[in-house]
Amino acid sequence: MIDRNPLPDGEGAEAIDERIRAQLTFIAEADKLKTVLRASPLAAADRRENDAEHSWHLALMVLLLAEYADEPVDVGHAMKLVIVHDLIEIYAGDSPVFDPDAVRDQVAREQAAADRLFTLLPADQAGWVRGLWDEFEAGATPEARFAKAMDRLEPMLLNWLNEGGTWGMPGATESKIRAREAGVVSASTRLGAVTDVLVAEGLRRGWIRPDPTDD
Amino acid sequence: MIDRNPLPDGEGAEAIDERIRAQLTFIAEADKLKTVLRASPLAAADRRENDAEHSWHLALMVLLLAEYADEPVDVGHAMKLVIVHDLIEIYAGDSPVFDPDAVRDQVAREQAAADRLFTLLPADQAGWVRGLWDEFEAGATPEARFAKAMDRLEPMLLNWLNEGGTWGMPGATESKIRAREAGVVSASTRLGAVTDVLVAEGLRRGWIRPDPTDD
Repeated sequence: MIDRNPLPDGEGAEAIDERIRAQLTFIAEADKLKTVLRASPLAAADRRENDAEHSWHLALMVLLLAEYADEPVDVGHAMKLVIVHDLIEIYAGDSPVFDPDAVRDQVAREQAAADRLFTLLPADQAGWVRGLWDEFEAGATPEARFAKAMDRLEPMLLNWLNEGGTWGMPGATESKIRAREAGVVSASTRLGAVTDVLVAEGLRRGWIRPDPTDD
Repeated sequence: MIDRNPLPDGEGAEAIDERIRAQLTFIAEADKLKTVLRASPLAAADRRENDAEHSWHLALMVLLLAEYADEPVDVGHAMKLVIVHDLIEIYAGDSPVFDPDAVRDQVAREQAAADRLFTLLPADQAGWVRGLWDEFEAGATPEARFAKAMDRLEPMLLNWLNEGGTWGMPGATESKIRAREAGVVSASTRLGAVTDVLVAEGLRRGWIRPDPTDD
């Protein structure tokens, strides 16, 4: 796509210098995030969600739900984290959490994708944008923890609105769903309590499978 | 959709109090933004863009291009503006700028949609989220001017990458396209110069129609 229709160059195109050309090329490449499908179904239509829609929804949730973070968060900074958090999936693809094959080499794939993607930007910008992605991944700041909590909560809401959604995937059982929920609980007591209700009620309604027993 | 599968209530659901129920209901309603199609074609796939994808792309552009704003901008605040700027289209629909029928009653439709949508939120939050939308619409702050510039620049880039895109719509001629471009020029001399190149080259390649002459 980058090479399909490059930005004008040559005479008259001096306004597009090397720096701005790199930035606009990255922005054009980022359009591909709109084609990376997640496992989650939408609530509003009968199709799967893509990464760009998902990232927008997380930014909206950060804005509206930050009051429930257990630690103070800089809302603008947390929004930056969610806007960039899935970009590397343009090259690495989505890795559905309940699919063991997808998550096996996920870290290595995503690091390689980050090396390839962010270096399209001018070096100074590549550095701090990569830094935002690293911060999200590490989850070591209040903003990253809250951003990750939204990344867990949003598909839980979509699953609820779809009477199960990805909770019905072969690899999904109560303990795996509760392990995802832990990412909400650890950043927000209040929102964690909400996810407890959703999981308990999901089990009661048969939308979530209990773990298999040994006997 | 809101009523399709409401959040649990009754015994055991006390964690979902009235405030958080209103917020999550709004967040579920917001999923519909993913189904509001714009006129613009994607660069990465052969389909039109939706409002949620578009809003995400603007947030990324704010983050990467804020250095070119003619006035200093608070990047986090400008990102908040673009995340909420199209929400009212859930009820008001998209109004393609080159379609005279669509833009005729646009302001009245969008104000009515805002009255209906933002009041789903708790009153305090409805107030300041509506305030973000009003700020974007008014374009009277540096952040709103830059956010609007991104809202003009993004479809110009998509048009460029599609060898014309909505520039080929019946109502689109050079002067109307330059009127859109003015929103970029007024917030960023540097990015305005880039759009000048795109429009000049679009004319040269026949992707933009010159204005009709009187003779």
